Amino acid sequence: METKEKQIPSQTGGSFLINKIPERIFIESDFSEEQNMMVASAKDFVEQQVLPLADELEKKKDLSQTIELLHKAGDLGLLGLGVSEKYGGIEVSFNTTLRVIEEMAKTTEFSPAIGVQTSIGIAPILLYGNEKQKAQYIPDMVSGKSKGCYCLTEPDAGSDANSGKTKAVYNETEKAYYLTGQKMWITNAGIADVFTVFAKIEDDKNLSAFIVEKGYEGLTLGEEEDKMGIRASSTRQVFLNDVRVPEENLLGKRGDGFKMALNVLSTGRIKLGIGGLGVSKKAIDYAVEYAVNRKQFGQSISSFGAIQQKLAKMVVKTYALQAAAYRTGELIDQKEEEYLKSGMSLEETKPKAVTAYGIECAIIKVFGTEAQDFVVDEGLQIYGGMGFSEEAPMARLYRDSRISRIFEGTNEINRMLIVDMLLKKAMNGELDLMNAATAVQKELTNIPSLTPNENTDTIEKATEVLENLKKISLIVAGAAAQKLMMKLKDEQEILMNVADMLIQIYMLESVIVKTKRIQDTLGEEASAVQIDICQLFMLDAVKEVKNSAEESLWSFSEGDELKMMQMALKRFTKIESFNLKEVRRRVAQKLIDEGKYKF
Amino acid sequence: METKEKQIPSQTGGSFLINKIPERIFIESDFSEEQNMMVASAKDFVEQQVLPLADELEKKKDLSQTIELLHKAGDLGLLGLGVSEKYGGIEVSFNTTLRVIEEMAKTTEFSPAIGVQTSIGIAPILLYGNEKQKAQYIPDMVSGKSKGCYCLTEPDAGSDANSGKTKAVYNETEKAYYLTGQKMWITNAGIADVFTVFAKIEDDKNLSAFIVEKGYEGLTLGEEEDKMGIRASSTRQVFLNDVRVPEENLLGKRGDGFKMALNVLSTGRIKLGIGGLGVSKKAIDYAVEYAVNRKQFGQSISSFGAIQQKLAKMVVKTYALQAAAYRTGELIDQKEEEYLKSGMSLEETKPKAVTAYGIECAIIKVFGTEAQDFVVDEGLQIYGGMGFSEEAPMARLYRDSRISRIFEGTNEINRMLIVDMLLKKAMNGELDLMNAATAVQKELTNIPSLTPNENTDTIEKATEVLENLKKISLIVAGAAAQKLMMKLKDEQEILMNVADMLIQIYMLESVIVKTKRIQDTLGEEASAVQIDICQLFMLDAVKEVKNSAEESLWSFSEGDELKMMQMALKRFTKIESFNLKEVRRRVAQKLIDEGKYKF
Repeated sequence: METKEKQIPSQTGGSFLINKIPERIFIESDFSEEQNMMVASAKDFVEQQVLPLADELEKKKDLSQTIELLHKAGDLGLLGLGVSEKYGGIEVSFNTTLRVIEEMAKTTEFSPAIGVQTSIGIAPILLYGNEKQKAQYIPDMVSGKSKGCYCLTEPDAGSDANSGKTKAVYNETEKAYYLTGQKMWITNAGIADVFTVFAKIEDDKNLSAFIVEKGYEGLTLGEEEDKMGIRASSTRQVFLNDVRVPEENLLGKRGDGFKMALNVLSTGRIKLGIGGLGVSKKAIDYAVEYAVNRKQFGQSISSFGAIQQKLAKMVVKTYALQAAAYRTGELIDQKEEEYLKSGMSLEETKPKAVTAYGIECAIIKVFGTEAQDFVVDEGLQIYGGMGFSEEAPMARLYRDSRISRIFEGTNEINRMLIVDMLLKKAMNGELDLMNAATAVQKELTNIPSLTPNENTDTIEKATEVLENLKKISLIVAGAAAQKLMMKLKDEQEILMNVADMLIQIYMLESVIVKTKRIQDTLGEEASAVQIDICQLFMLDAVKEVKNSAEESLWSFSEGDELKMMQMALKRFTKIESFNLKEVRRRVAQKLIDEGKYKF
Repeated sequence: METKEKQIPSQTGGSFLINKIPERIFIESDFSEEQNMMVASAKDFVEQQVLPLADELEKKKDLSQTIELLHKAGDLGLLGLGVSEKYGGIEVSFNTTLRVIEEMAKTTEFSPAIGVQTSIGIAPILLYGNEKQKAQYIPDMVSGKSKGCYCLTEPDAGSDANSGKTKAVYNETEKAYYLTGQKMWITNAGIADVFTVFAKIEDDKNLSAFIVEKGYEGLTLGEEEDKMGIRASSTRQVFLNDVRVPEENLLGKRGDGFKMALNVLSTGRIKLGIGGLGVSKKAIDYAVEYAVNRKQFGQSISSFGAIQQKLAKMVVKTYALQAAAYRTGELIDQKEEEYLKSGMSLEETKPKAVTAYGIECAIIKVFGTEAQDFVVDEGLQIYGGMGFSEEAPMARLYRDSRISRIFEGTNEINRMLIVDMLLKKAMNGELDLMNAATAVQKELTNIPSLTPNENTDTIEKATEVLENLKKISLIVAGAAAQKLMMKLKDEQEILMNVADMLIQIYMLESVIVKTKRIQDTLGEEASAVQIDICQLFMLDAVKEVKNSAEESLWSFSEGDELKMMQMALKRFTKIESFNLKEVRRRVAQKLIDEGKYKF
């Protein structure tokens, strides 16, 4: 254990807050030809197989089409990405998996069905099953022959998952557990063959996990839920009435269920976030097409400032999400490799690598799902009356998207987790937040340089802004932690403010490095629009950080201390003005010229 | 004409921007017992008659229930509010009508059906019909026997309504017009007996309006549209194929149709805005009930800061909307009275009074519908997974609400109208914006007083903040107008920024005066929560104005001028800090204690 701790490099989850801006992050052009072929295959599957059936799937008379499509996805290898070949999978990088999910997410009606199968359906057994369990269940799930579902939530245990009441009673004679309880909002329940059920054994404080098969006596399902969206996926309650589960179906160790559940959810989170990227791109493509073709007042509505402003905002958020998502994917891949080298097994490394970047996964989940809802909402508005019609694409995107801010931990829970994980890392010495905060405190007592900034390069300026945002966030978060100590956990408003600062910083850093790489490759002129986007996102980030910092300062500080803090805030959130309208118009015009999101 | 112009008092549409804060606005407690009885009757109708059928209405197998409910509403007098008794109506004030609509809006599935009947269904004939037309159509529409619809929008003429292609050809011999064209998104088309159709006669530049009856040959309907929400209302296309319309069915004067259409829409706008108030109250009531009953981590989720913050934000927006909506209702009533005294007929005064406050109507529309979507979205999030279920109330509210930002002119169009109307009033001398702007410019050259503000009273402080916001808005809008002159109309981004400033100012002023009245009546202690709300809204308004002002300044100003402007912006948007978290928690706690929105 000791040695492993020491092997952790300076690049780890949350370290972006205290590290210098990285030289390089993974960007779209880094995907290899092989990776792109996999993406193309997913794209083909979506466009050729799923979308033509989308309207029927949406009506969901029965689920046979959904089942059939899962089979087809299995045949194409799309259900086994990242799974060992010995279980029938394809051993691709995590980033490839993410990129494929991005494409699949574009079929919003259907993607939860495939999403559950490939993440929380397969993952518990893949990550925590023993050899026998894996050999028995994974190959069939990878081929699509067998469908999985994840039974964690209960009527009274949602965000507070560990409080579930489902009980497992051990029968010594039969060497079996008897499970009784009720699970709710179980995606894919209606088509599932394998149920991962979380339950407490006897009077345990913590959950354990069990593999329950469809045929087991006492396992019954509720009616299909009538949901606002994602209608091509089955969602039902699962009832367990004294269901006999052989003891060899216990998954992982007794009492480890909650930890397993959280790790599995971490993976689910970044996947939801990157799903937001796919949906945002789709919504932008539809919106710009409509805006170009729709004529009012004698011209294409895409020529109006009010519309261009919307298009630009949609692009900026999507660009940031894309930059941060692929970046995180690679970080997880690198961490996996590191762990593999240290001798861990492939399956062991996977949850550990994702967990190492749990902060970033939660950031992508929150930003990604909120970007998605923003982009879809603006897209709908651009469609005008047509946006409200189920005949046009936006209404369904609007309905389907809304679940993502709730799935895999509401965004509020995720915000609090971001700060919680960060503080834990600070406390166990993995992240030296204290020194970083002290250094900034010291800088505060210096008189700020009054010589005007000599930078004329947008990216260099943005980098300086980013450094300042990191500083002010360290000051505010540090002061909050110092002042409130153990009470901080009860101050959810402040936790959420801090989370919002961290989110913006991670996104802005990703935007800057991505843009710099594009600029270095293409040159100033050919990357002009990306530089514009970078500048627009920087402005958003500064505003958000400023607002969150101020909200939290007002809530825990007062008098002279507050005055000093507000001066620091002012100092570290200064930016130069630029012609916002023109820059937005340029971004919109580029989108209009391309006719598609291509940034 | 000349004399009438002079009779216009200082209180007129848009004058809030340059006038001192009023002593009094209409607030909820001003509704008389008689008015409240009318409201109670609407409430009863909704709760007893409509809501029990809501689920069936939502599924809309056929529209017979919708028709039946309209009849019942007619029997109760709810379809004839504000209509002369001689046509079977009940002559109540505009504010009473608004208050009733607020209640009716709570049945979001059905309210568009009743909303169209009572506003854009009846209004064109009531406001612009001749005596014969009114006598023939209005009584049946008021009783619910006859249903009306409003056929303006066409496939290629949405926001640009006057570009409609529907043609009317006059036949001299038959003394009749022949109408040909296609209308789209016509609410109530499937149940309508009377169609107000806008069409261009021969080669006219402007629309005219016609009364077309259901039985006329050549009038056919498209299929029911498959809409995301408001499913209990019929929405269909209307096709006119050489429909013979007797010349006595021409409504108003030839070529006046577009003007009529806009005036009718003005009424529709404030009604949509106040509908947002009803829906917001409903969503808050559901959300707080759910939050109190839902337990997680061993406690009611209403005890969590993250939830309390949401509840407080929902209340603050709703409070502001309520204050501004009733205020505007009374202003329109007063204007009506003024016009009546000057000898105009009741029907003549109505559209004129609403038009006089067209700016405020658009403000209520924009703020109200956006508040509605915000409140419903947060309400859904509080419900968590349950929010996405069609079994719980939030999903339907979410779907039904989304149309309001598009109906009666998208919010973008409304924002631009706000500024357009204001500038027109400035140009025709009705509003002395120039002098007001010059006065502020002069003040700018004074050195600001450095003595700290002595006000300790929240409302007095807020009043000072409001005055400053008016000043900075005059400076920014004035500079934009001066600088861009005739080009301003092409700078939609700046127009929307200016509109956003005006919206916030009108809302904040309404909040302050309402709160002051409550404080004066109940005393400081009993009105503590309203004072808290006032403070929270003030903060929102300052942030919004600051942001909008800055966005627009960056877009049309630069160099030293911009520097000076930014200094003015800083000076006029200064506010004192307060413990935001505690104030929000107090507001939320009051809501939790009451269990309902009662502010």
